[in-house]
Amino acid sequence: MLGAQNGEDILVRFGNRVRELRRATGASQEEFAFRCDLDRTYISGIERGRRNVSLRNLVTIAQALDVTLSQLFDGLER
Amino acid sequence: MLGAQNGEDILVRFGNRVRELRRATGASQEEFAFRCDLDRTYISGIERGRRNVSLRNLVTIAQALDVTLSQLFDGLER
Repeated sequence: MLGAQNGEDILVRFGNRVRELRRATGASQEEFAFRCDLDRTYISGIERGRRNVSLRNLVTIAQALDVTLSQLFDGLER
Repeated sequence: MLGAQNGEDILVRFGNRVRELRRATGASQEEFAFRCDLDRTYISGIERGRRNVSLRNLVTIAQALDVTLSQLFDGLER
């Protein structure tokens, strides 16, 4: 099955990317969650690679980070 | 709420992108669904902007289209 092998990895790599970009904005998880109108535990789960984030929430997160979806994923698969 | 206003739009725009790239590969929805190991009705729903696709399935779809996630989303927000 295509994608299955890297399934775990992409969530962890995406979480690390979100944490990195979120920290670069100077926002705490609480502040960032408020900005996204999402729960802090949900943001925490994303950053720990535990959440299989949906496209709508990806858009919300990208906007809160002030990056495009394309920028959010740039280099994640390398 | 960040992202809410464009919520519907991104799913439709994403669906159009998937259809365009899928057709460029010459694959039917059935063939593409088989390649993704996803249901044909799920692929159809994605292309009609009815599915809030998760990150794992985004990876699967990008791989089946032979593009990166970044390429899959390039220009979608413009």
